[in-house]
Amino acid sequence: MLTKEELEEYSAEAIEIYLDHISIDCVVFGFHEGQMKVLMLKSKNEDGWQLPGGFVQKREPIDVAANRILATRTGIDEVFLQQFHVFGAPDRNRQHNEMYADMVAKEKNFFAHRFISIGYYALVDFFDAIPTPDEFSEICTWRDLNDLPPFLLDHELIFTTALDTLRLQLSYQPIGYNLMPKEFTMPELQKLYETILGKKLDRRNFQRRMLGFGILNKLPQTRKGGAHKAPYLYSFDLENYQAALKEGLKSGW
Amino acid sequence: MLTKEELEEYSAEAIEIYLDHISIDCVVFGFHEGQMKVLMLKSKNEDGWQLPGGFVQKREPIDVAANRILATRTGIDEVFLQQFHVFGAPDRNRQHNEMYADMVAKEKNFFAHRFISIGYYALVDFFDAIPTPDEFSEICTWRDLNDLPPFLLDHELIFTTALDTLRLQLSYQPIGYNLMPKEFTMPELQKLYETILGKKLDRRNFQRRMLGFGILNKLPQTRKGGAHKAPYLYSFDLENYQAALKEGLKSGW
Repeated sequence: MLTKEELEEYSAEAIEIYLDHISIDCVVFGFHEGQMKVLMLKSKNEDGWQLPGGFVQKREPIDVAANRILATRTGIDEVFLQQFHVFGAPDRNRQHNEMYADMVAKEKNFFAHRFISIGYYALVDFFDAIPTPDEFSEICTWRDLNDLPPFLLDHELIFTTALDTLRLQLSYQPIGYNLMPKEFTMPELQKLYETILGKKLDRRNFQRRMLGFGILNKLPQTRKGGAHKAPYLYSFDLENYQAALKEGLKSGW
Repeated sequence: MLTKEELEEYSAEAIEIYLDHISIDCVVFGFHEGQMKVLMLKSKNEDGWQLPGGFVQKREPIDVAANRILATRTGIDEVFLQQFHVFGAPDRNRQHNEMYADMVAKEKNFFAHRFISIGYYALVDFFDAIPTPDEFSEICTWRDLNDLPPFLLDHELIFTTALDTLRLQLSYQPIGYNLMPKEFTMPELQKLYETILGKKLDRRNFQRRMLGFGILNKLPQTRKGGAHKAPYLYSFDLENYQAALKEGLKSGW
């Protein structure tokens, strides 16, 4: 539990360092061996969980701020973070406004203000991250998508909007470069898509479509071992992958 | 040319009404008879043009603010506006910071602050709009995409990002409901896509793909008149169209 004095100190510091009225919240999806998880923090002072978030320093670019926040929570630098939506309902952080209003004097109360939050999402291999709580949290950990705890503020909306965006983007942007090993089989890549979409896909359609995008290299060697026919290995064609990130997948117009 | 007194008055008023550090810029694309244009304003005090923009009132949802700004500039209420990106470079409005720093005292100078801008885009039939300048502009008018004037601040980046987003979104979201007449032919719809993409599309592929999305109703009547075979008429299936806006077009995974 944070004391009144601790909160006042954080608040006074925040007023010095950060831009008023703007926050950042990150939805960090973690994948490993066909499991999908999201990084969350258990609040010290409240009965609920939040997404990793923070504020923008007075002279800091917003994308740099998002990366700084994520690096502080996970130890990972230079994650591919993508802006996906801004959350700007006037009462979105009322829970915090009210809590802090009781604890910190108005004129030095950064947290009692209205905050418009820029949502970013990222995909990381969750074994790369070292979840690290912030000053306001007692726990930072991966939570299973099928077993999410109660969210604070509008963080459930931020989470579901990120997941919807990610699913929609599978149709027109490549995914997987920072999630798959360097060489992978088609069933392994299909598993990634199925995990994000939360549904089974037809094996032949998936393969046909994925190859049609022109972002994969078929490698000369196959994967040895196992009772079945050795499966082909693929890697991403980075040049085409980058182009597709920018211009959309070839199935576009 | 705005005087020092006028600027001071606007600035004092802005401090009362608006949230600090947050602005909104709108890229309004206008279509009519195969032409594509963008709504722009010629500044009174500077040698350049801007996109329609404004600020967020202290208790106003951000989407409501964007609609208010656009309604004020065009007379059109309830345009379908879509957030597409946040522009947050620390120096993005330095031009204005410097200009206003010379004209308005620091402690009452709203415009000398750093502003992070939320970009929205909209598509409207440009004959529906009555372009109306704001206090800082002498002209508000449609400019042809092939003949754009010099932009102020980072508004060229905002414009090109909106156009790139719109083009990418053609691959996975329906478009045209507020731009096409109630009943239209396939070549008319194709013309809209070609205008946005800035390139010709194959007639048969376009028709096959568009029908595959399941968002069109083929009407029993054809369009009469003209030397050629009377073309079929279509209308949008609103239920499927709305679902596709939310979930992506059927060509998705």
